[in-house]
Amino acid sequence: MGNRSKLKPKKISKKEEMTDNHKKNGYSKLLGIKGLSAKAKIFDILAGGKIAFLNTQEAMENDIYPAYRGVLKKGNKELVVMFDLTENLVKKGEIGLFAEVEKELKAKEGEQIIIKHLERPASIDYIRKKLDGKFLEDKEMNVIIKDLMDNRLSQVELAAFVSAMYIRGVNYEETVSLANSIVNSGDTLNLHKKPILDKHCVGGVAGNRTTMIVVPIIAAAGCYIPKSSSRAITSAAGTADTMEVLAPVDIQMDELKRIVLKTKGAIVWGGGMNLAAADDKLIKIRHPLSLDPKGVVLASVLSKKKAVNATHVIIDIPIGRGAKFQDMDVAKDLANDFINIGKKLGMKIEAVITDGSDPIGNGIGPALECKDVLEVLEGKGPYDLREKSCALAGGLLELAGKAPKGRGMAIAEDLINNEKALKKFREIIGEQGGNPRIKIDELPIGEYIYQVKAEKSGRIGHVDSKILSKIARAAGSPKDIGAGIVLHREAGDKVRKGEVILSVYSESETKIEFAIKALEALNPIELEQYLLKSVR
Amino acid sequence: MGNRSKLKPKKISKKEEMTDNHKKNGYSKLLGIKGLSAKAKIFDILAGGKIAFLNTQEAMENDIYPAYRGVLKKGNKELVVMFDLTENLVKKGEIGLFAEVEKELKAKEGEQIIIKHLERPASIDYIRKKLDGKFLEDKEMNVIIKDLMDNRLSQVELAAFVSAMYIRGVNYEETVSLANSIVNSGDTLNLHKKPILDKHCVGGVAGNRTTMIVVPIIAAAGCYIPKSSSRAITSAAGTADTMEVLAPVDIQMDELKRIVLKTKGAIVWGGGMNLAAADDKLIKIRHPLSLDPKGVVLASVLSKKKAVNATHVIIDIPIGRGAKFQDMDVAKDLANDFINIGKKLGMKIEAVITDGSDPIGNGIGPALECKDVLEVLEGKGPYDLREKSCALAGGLLELAGKAPKGRGMAIAEDLINNEKALKKFREIIGEQGGNPRIKIDELPIGEYIYQVKAEKSGRIGHVDSKILSKIARAAGSPKDIGAGIVLHREAGDKVRKGEVILSVYSESETKIEFAIKALEALNPIELEQYLLKSVR
Repeated sequence: MGNRSKLKPKKISKKEEMTDNHKKNGYSKLLGIKGLSAKAKIFDILAGGKIAFLNTQEAMENDIYPAYRGVLKKGNKELVVMFDLTENLVKKGEIGLFAEVEKELKAKEGEQIIIKHLERPASIDYIRKKLDGKFLEDKEMNVIIKDLMDNRLSQVELAAFVSAMYIRGVNYEETVSLANSIVNSGDTLNLHKKPILDKHCVGGVAGNRTTMIVVPIIAAAGCYIPKSSSRAITSAAGTADTMEVLAPVDIQMDELKRIVLKTKGAIVWGGGMNLAAADDKLIKIRHPLSLDPKGVVLASVLSKKKAVNATHVIIDIPIGRGAKFQDMDVAKDLANDFINIGKKLGMKIEAVITDGSDPIGNGIGPALECKDVLEVLEGKGPYDLREKSCALAGGLLELAGKAPKGRGMAIAEDLINNEKALKKFREIIGEQGGNPRIKIDELPIGEYIYQVKAEKSGRIGHVDSKILSKIARAAGSPKDIGAGIVLHREAGDKVRKGEVILSVYSESETKIEFAIKALEALNPIELEQYLLKSVR
Repeated sequence: MGNRSKLKPKKISKKEEMTDNHKKNGYSKLLGIKGLSAKAKIFDILAGGKIAFLNTQEAMENDIYPAYRGVLKKGNKELVVMFDLTENLVKKGEIGLFAEVEKELKAKEGEQIIIKHLERPASIDYIRKKLDGKFLEDKEMNVIIKDLMDNRLSQVELAAFVSAMYIRGVNYEETVSLANSIVNSGDTLNLHKKPILDKHCVGGVAGNRTTMIVVPIIAAAGCYIPKSSSRAITSAAGTADTMEVLAPVDIQMDELKRIVLKTKGAIVWGGGMNLAAADDKLIKIRHPLSLDPKGVVLASVLSKKKAVNATHVIIDIPIGRGAKFQDMDVAKDLANDFINIGKKLGMKIEAVITDGSDPIGNGIGPALECKDVLEVLEGKGPYDLREKSCALAGGLLELAGKAPKGRGMAIAEDLINNEKALKKFREIIGEQGGNPRIKIDELPIGEYIYQVKAEKSGRIGHVDSKILSKIARAAGSPKDIGAGIVLHREAGDKVRKGEVILSVYSESETKIEFAIKALEALNPIELEQYLLKSVR
């Protein structure tokens, strides 16, 4: 269209001039030119995000505002950051890098960094699509997770995405796409072996430390089981916290590979590796409003299994009062979803619905739960923990075809009775860098003890996992590994007035006081009422 | 329950000790004790949010992590902030305050600041409720907006709230609650006069600068019209940008009051005052995904009218290709919603659906649109702009009972013909601090001109507002007030090959080049096709 008028402006060609104009006019957004160059100035501020700061005047001249997001480029390395502005801390031509940014870009003081405007990420249209109730294609889900990993999506955009999945729902295909994208977002463990077994518990039951018994049994049975576990969020101890009493769990991928190839089993902290990296970012968004869309939960769990190339997985779904799920039908649906999505991801899955109405084992808190675990492996210890662990291990062996149908549990029990599981566990502890000869009475149990006695005789009706967790945390766990609770009686037991029913352990006088305060406010143990009403 | 065991820990009572324990153990979250005291260290970093930073070690000891949100207290003033951590910039016992925080707390270097953990805000439950598809009570909506203003809600929580409103919908009652909460979140203009008139346009039409003509007409007719307008977001000029060519628009509340009490009218920038403060925060959340839940848009517009205590409001809803709405039925629904919600807010509203398929007026860009406005007020200028402005002004006078039914427009036209509106406009310009004697040829129009000529003869079918805005912005507007476009022909006009149909103005050679590039990529003017198909 259109020919030139008489006032014919001359063409601008040389890139340098463009950049000068860009500096003057900040039109890179409009025409995407090569960007602004600035000298790195390192600040040691940990911002909990990728943040850089610019001289206020220079920023304004370049259409950059506080909390505006842009791209930093050093060599071929690009990083999306959020900008803070400062009058004095950096001059024009300089850019201040906070700790996370310095680390990511491997930038040194005085190095030249290119600042570019951020193009609108394609995934924004896909998030809109989800908000509008349409389902996402595999490729669209991948782009969203990739942009999430590249830090191209803001908290607002991510929260909208999670909210949309929560309200609109996530179908099977989307769940599979999401799980696969999450797997691809991080590193994977490639043992090049088959089968690779794994287990997961949807959680909510205090003292439920089966993993530390299942793993040595499975490994002793000759199967690979590279187990990555989590730390406690609201509970008194996660498996990672508990294992850490005996050996380091913050172990890198290649070290994990070495350990598992040698001992067949390991129990490490998942957060320490880069497995299913996108999942951790999504959890940070889901947490504040506890937005747990079913499909996202399924993808979150199964992507972590897929990332270690698991072939056979057993999933423990405890139900009952105090557990995450109360209703059998809800649990059954979840079980079927795990099995079906797992199949689509190429994993054979068995889901077992277990009784989660009361705590498993006697100890609650890292060191106290270790005590239970070691006792069970020594052929003693809490019967319920031993039973459940052998059932899970046996089921897993049968699922993988390593035990005849119906014989799995017996095989698991044999491996405890002949102490092969104990031997294997000590071998794993040693390989992970712990003391393989640790004795139970060497465990660092807190020295401050407070005993709770029955106020009257009766039968224990309910022991509440959530309340016990609160009290154990008040006493210091999981931070203080010796803190926690020991249950001397369990639901169904008859108790006499004055009999000790539980003991609280703490490492400090202060914290045992906190626990006592919590105990005064919350009652973890209910006695059954016999006399409901007396009539005269 | 329970009596003490033999190891009887002594009770802790004194607050000081508690604070020490808090410092050692960071249990304030658990037992809510009085918090940590730190010495203020001021940093001039503009973070675009409320950010403070703490010594890394001290933070960790107090369960404070990067991006963790907490409360700072100075005297009775409390402020929710997000924490960054640093090894060296602040020592233990110090807290670094970024510019926004220093300002809010009026904190001085070395002052003692109390740091407290943030209690979970009640509004989180209400946001959950909305996510789960339930409608919010008036009181619940108020709490959410209050927490928003107190900075107690994170970006994630706010985005979830807006997403939930977008997907679940916002009913009449919620819209009214939201509007009222937004009004209460900011300052209000109290002239203690009646009636107070106002107007609003839902936007989307280039050059549609009716406000600057309607306001002087209404004021000349003897009615109060304190008009707050916005700046351009994606368009070539907002009313605030255009008025600013003639007079300052960043005017504080009491100054606005003085002006309006004197001249009856004013045209100021809404963002400069603290009107409907929560709305600006919500817009920041809505913008990235252009999430515009109808109820939120209604509340946003009407709260700004309510905040100036408007009694009668006329709302312009342009429809047609290139405008925000294309469909008449959608526009009618919106019109009825405005009227009904307005009634619930105590305002009498008329909504007029106008033809927005083509630009109004000839000029696009701040100075060029001023030219149109002044010409119209001088009795010349673009006919469409004059017609539309008089229709709106007339309708508003009738709505307020200041003109007999059917006579409003004629009265408005008289006020232009007898130059009373022009006189009033110059009076307003003067009171706002501009030059009341400004002449049209003194307007700072850009000196670089590029003319677009018709490539062939024909009739103009469509002139695209969105594309014209892009080109005008490429030329520099709204930042460069002299930049923009003049349309020499409008839709329906016959043009001959080679005839100039539009001119682009810019203040710089560089930017006219940007505009030319944009023109090469985008065609703002379509010629009607006569010969659709030739058959032989």
